[in-house]
Amino acid sequence: MYNNAGKRKKVKLSEMIQYPNGKKDVWQPKLHSASQRGMNLEKDLNTTNAYYLGQDIAVIHKKPTPVQIVHVDYPRREAAKITEAYFKVPSTTDYNGIYKGRYIDFEAKECQAKTSFPLKMLFAHQITHLKSVVRHGGIAFLVVRFTSMEVTFLADAEKVALFNENGGRASIPYSWFLEHAYPIDGSYAKPVDYLKVVDKIYLQ
Amino acid sequence: MYNNAGKRKKVKLSEMIQYPNGKKDVWQPKLHSASQRGMNLEKDLNTTNAYYLGQDIAVIHKKPTPVQIVHVDYPRREAAKITEAYFKVPSTTDYNGIYKGRYIDFEAKECQAKTSFPLKMLFAHQITHLKSVVRHGGIAFLVVRFTSMEVTFLADAEKVALFNENGGRASIPYSWFLEHAYPIDGSYAKPVDYLKVVDKIYLQ
Repeated sequence: MYNNAGKRKKVKLSEMIQYPNGKKDVWQPKLHSASQRGMNLEKDLNTTNAYYLGQDIAVIHKKPTPVQIVHVDYPRREAAKITEAYFKVPSTTDYNGIYKGRYIDFEAKECQAKTSFPLKMLFAHQITHLKSVVRHGGIAFLVVRFTSMEVTFLADAEKVALFNENGGRASIPYSWFLEHAYPIDGSYAKPVDYLKVVDKIYLQ
Repeated sequence: MYNNAGKRKKVKLSEMIQYPNGKKDVWQPKLHSASQRGMNLEKDLNTTNAYYLGQDIAVIHKKPTPVQIVHVDYPRREAAKITEAYFKVPSTTDYNGIYKGRYIDFEAKECQAKTSFPLKMLFAHQITHLKSVVRHGGIAFLVVRFTSMEVTFLADAEKVALFNENGGRASIPYSWFLEHAYPIDGSYAKPVDYLKVVDKIYLQ
């Protein structure tokens, strides 16, 4: 954010941690954390989920990428080779599992844009899915990383759905995340420690 | 079971519905249900889950088949074609989701053998996974269909794990399912109505 200030619109630190209503208890993200810089979000989430699993904190996995398999060669029975397949639209979200007895479900997106998160990065049925999860008593959210800011947010699914339904806007401004979402802290062992945020906003 | 009796060892109906301890309140499976005969378990579960989703009863999906993608052709940007990929060992189970606020996780297997379910059909880490789910407060089980019997059972994951740990046996006999598991009834709209069993054995 600062070391690259000349390359993009500068965002003041004060803009990031001041909240208009003064009610939110939000900790400051590690903007220059070595663990986050240059690694992608999926890798960081996999590392984090492996940590949660290894420490028996939670059982949360990324779902496999959905693929439509058209042709498979069987040179040997034990070595089937898929020779024609296509990527399919995922019917749900990427991550789900269980934490402290609660069903957890979220979608993760890396956003290159600096000033807003384009809603076209989500499918309408993914938002529908997340709303269903909430209706059935689960915890549903988005994890959005603004790569240029080196900040990762947890945004509650219902708030995102509300923005999507009321706004008529094509993207969610960065300022909305500062006001309505929660920065996710991390460390080497758990680069995106989103369950700390889940504890704070859903389980207290 | 009866119309094909000559082709295999005959199992008496009385053997299927009598329970030694007399405690279980188990309903009789529809042995000749047209909806089950000739359809495979995955298709039946997908139909059932679509019904649950459509009626807003539960949000439970099959996970995509995990595939290791090695090579992708991009003739056009919007039409990526996977030309080399391999099936991967699934890290968890096939199905999970949420029902009445509870995390649900299960593996489904169709069993061709008539007298037992071979444990080699499950990976050790899948049993470990199901035990973790239970430890974190979720509901975990197997759905096993004996195709020759036209009967589908729900078997609690902890009971299966216990059998696996104590038995030193390579397969679970059919008689074990009659005593320790629960037949799953169905209808055209929900061919494998496993949530009825979940209600009965986990949520009462």
